[in-house]
Amino acid sequence: GFAHLVKRTHPSDLVEALESASIEDTVALLLLLAAPQRAELFAHFPPARQDELLRAMPREAVVQLFEHMPSDDRADLFNRLGEEARQKLLPALAKVERDDILKLASYPEGTVGSVTTSDYVYVAPEMTVAEALAHVRATAPDKETIYVIYVLDQHFRLRGTVSLRDLLLADDKATVAEVMRRDPVFARATWPRLKAAELIRRYGLLALPVVNGGDKMIGIVTVDDAMEIEKREDASQLARFGGTAALTSAGSVDLDILNTPFKRMFGVRVFWLVVLTFFGILTSTFVAEQEELLSQVIVLAAFIAPIVDMGGNTGSQSATLVIRAMALGEVKLKWRDLWRVIRRELPVAAALGVVIALLEAVLAYFSKGVGPDVLLVVGLAMLTCTALGGIIGALLPFAARRIGTDPATLSSPLITSVMDLVGVFIYFGIAYVVMGDTLRQAAGA
Amino acid sequence: GFAHLVKRTHPSDLVEALESASIEDTVALLLLLAAPQRAELFAHFPPARQDELLRAMPREAVVQLFEHMPSDDRADLFNRLGEEARQKLLPALAKVERDDILKLASYPEGTVGSVTTSDYVYVAPEMTVAEALAHVRATAPDKETIYVIYVLDQHFRLRGTVSLRDLLLADDKATVAEVMRRDPVFARATWPRLKAAELIRRYGLLALPVVNGGDKMIGIVTVDDAMEIEKREDASQLARFGGTAALTSAGSVDLDILNTPFKRMFGVRVFWLVVLTFFGILTSTFVAEQEELLSQVIVLAAFIAPIVDMGGNTGSQSATLVIRAMALGEVKLKWRDLWRVIRRELPVAAALGVVIALLEAVLAYFSKGVGPDVLLVVGLAMLTCTALGGIIGALLPFAARRIGTDPATLSSPLITSVMDLVGVFIYFGIAYVVMGDTLRQAAGA
Ligand SMILES: [Mg+2]
Ligand SMILES: [Mg+2]
Ligand SMILES: [Mg+2]
Ligand SMILES: [Mg+2]
Ligand SMILES: [Mg+2]
Ligand SMILES: [Mg+2]
Ligand SMILES: [Mg+2]
Ligand SMILES: [Mg+2]
Ligand SMILES: [Mg+2]
Ligand SMILES: [Mg+2]
Ligand SMILES: [Mg+2]
Ligand SMILES: [Mg+2]
Ligand SMILES: [Mg+2]
Repeated sequence: GFAHLVKRTHPSDLVEALESASIEDTVALLLLLAAPQRAELFAHFPPARQDELLRAMPREAVVQLFEHMPSDDRADLFNRLGEEARQKLLPALAKVERDDILKLASYPEGTVGSVTTSDYVYVAPEMTVAEALAHVRATAPDKETIYVIYVLDQHFRLRGTVSLRDLLLADDKATVAEVMRRDPVFARATWPRLKAAELIRRYGLLALPVVNGGDKMIGIVTVDDAMEIEKREDASQLARFGGTAALTSAGSVDLDILNTPFKRMFGVRVFWLVVLTFFGILTSTFVAEQEELLSQVIVLAAFIAPIVDMGGNTGSQSATLVIRAMALGEVKLKWRDLWRVIRRELPVAAALGVVIALLEAVLAYFSKGVGPDVLLVVGLAMLTCTALGGIIGALLPFAARRIGTDPATLSSPLITSVMDLVGVFIYFGIAYVVMGDTLRQAAGA
Repeated sequence: GFAHLVKRTHPSDLVEALESASIEDTVALLLLLAAPQRAELFAHFPPARQDELLRAMPREAVVQLFEHMPSDDRADLFNRLGEEARQKLLPALAKVERDDILKLASYPEGTVGSVTTSDYVYVAPEMTVAEALAHVRATAPDKETIYVIYVLDQHFRLRGTVSLRDLLLADDKATVAEVMRRDPVFARATWPRLKAAELIRRYGLLALPVVNGGDKMIGIVTVDDAMEIEKREDASQLARFGGTAALTSAGSVDLDILNTPFKRMFGVRVFWLVVLTFFGILTSTFVAEQEELLSQVIVLAAFIAPIVDMGGNTGSQSATLVIRAMALGEVKLKWRDLWRVIRRELPVAAALGVVIALLEAVLAYFSKGVGPDVLLVVGLAMLTCTALGGIIGALLPFAARRIGTDPATLSSPLITSVMDLVGVFIYFGIAYVVMGDTLRQAAGA
């Protein structure tokens, strides 16, 4: 039957298989399972689906869910309940469960506390290794991990950690205090959750202990949740680079093309577009002021776009390469690293500029048969824009970090717009220098 | 002394502290450590640094490194050695170590095999739980993890897995076959390594077993390495979106602004820029053909850039939101999902188009005092380009996946260039429709 299938199949696969089933059918299947199994499967559904399922479940099953779900997922679910549903639920729960839910649910979305689970094993420093092992065995079934054990004093302050491996290999009569590792890495519940994921990756941890403002341990962040957090963060970094605004304070939720309400989707996206429109107006105002030159040499207008775009393109390239190196910790905000980047980017940008300028000049000659002075202007402007784009793009992430902004909030459209403005200055500047004679002749005629 | 400091400090922190120390000083410090401790610390240095340190170490220390390093990192180091260094090293090692190195080093960079470690615990299905636990304890010190134990038959074929938790909670006299989980998730050594990281994240694993072509188990990928793999992959996805070409077959190495040689850095970047130049030429050729219109209404030229850019900007926004949703598994290549995305994006794109068009028209009126027909052309073109950009951007990732390409290889400069071309068609099309009269009058005069 279904219960047997559930036992043999991973919850993630079951959730995917049930994706297009109706809410009623899914609830009916869930009710076939024993409460602990049901809670585990339920915790794997996406939040929006969990909310729909919950509304279709009998009250008794809802209470059972809150009794058996992992404590971090249960706090999330509780935070998404309406006031009425909360008031109905809480009295039905045992005091210890109620206190746990209210404590974990008190940390705002986006903080370490919001991804903390209280299902961890702790022991006292005075216990012997044999006692600690017995305690681990006795409490194992309810815990998210038993492979890292936390050593707490009587005030719930974190004194050290001991791995199950170390416990198994240690002398049974030694005390926990003798075998534990002191000064463990930890996170505060109010830090951004991304910080917890980064610590777990940096130190290769299975779980990270979390303490509150009073230095009491409140739980752990597990490595599986850390992987989810970093995946989501990197995906939203990509979306920011594509030009959805950088509203990423701890409490903000990412734009989601399927679920974000219209108003928020519109608001976040129009913000950047308005900023970019003002950049565009600056650029086009400047171009419009070149009316005299453009009316003399009308073909110049045709090259505005490809030339300024190439600045944006090389700028995007070098900016993302520097953002990437900063994300991986290979480049830091130091004069030495800035200098190393520039020394590397300068010859590449120059070479790209020469090649693209030659290509553009050849293509312009054969496609439009333009004269030598226009060719010279187009080639020189293309060379300058491409090379300068590479340099400016490499500098922008340093500038962002210098003013305290995450370089990952730089967006490709912004880099492009900046380079449009820089590009038209360069292009018409070069045109005036090269074509000064032509213009004066035309004015004299 | 240093040995004591090393014991208390995490290797990642030590490596960072030693970042600006000289190679000689670092080697001198390393030689103060016992061989196993030294190998663990050494494995945390970045590859380029490892290579420098190795060249400065006495031969005996090099052999000790290869005896004590984690087997996955050791295979990587071996692969970076020159032919001469390999021939000097191999005879100094025991046969079992030599075979292990040659086996793991045989999998090309970028494959699951290249991140596989052979330091795992396996047991036979006929063993009792007590025997298995004794075996785990006896072999624990040399293993990357002892928390997942692999059950292999006499042909080294993977029959199941058992967690240390399950072993500890099981009856001592039960057999491993009775308590193990059958049909475990596994990866093949020749798959792309990213696949292993995704499986570890999807199923919340601590380690993933790896089998070779003959279905023999060769080792495991651990969750800490999975986190590194996904971090690197997401960082390079960002760099690709910024327009560094999508040459990401299994064997390829990411562009690195500090370390990639000039020739490769130039080659990968010039590829995209040349593609974009050809797009630009198409666009500018079309614009140049509108010489008659432009010479009549010269101010139209000033609005080419902001209008076509806005199409690229909204296109970048919607494309990254869809790429993000695909990366998180929320949107798949199905007609149903395509339809859901379009139904969501259409009203947002239309609303963005209206707002930006009005803004542009107002700004154009006050900054350039253009007449009503130009205002109408600019406003209508801005509306169409912005809205269409949103739709086309949302479709491109589906199109990419349809032709078998990773949507993450779409780049912002490419989307921008496509929208430039679409944009000038729209702009001049609307101009001819709205200004047809003006033009005929001018031609008649
Ligand atoms: Mg519980
Ligand atoms: Mg979770
Ligand atoms: Mg939470
Ligand atoms: Mg969790
Ligand atoms: Mg989980
Ligand atoms: Mg541009
Ligand atoms: Mg622009
Ligand atoms: Mg070994
Ligand atoms: Mg390797
Ligand atoms: Mg490893
Ligand atoms: Mg590692
Ligand atoms: Mg553009
Ligand atoms: Mg273009």
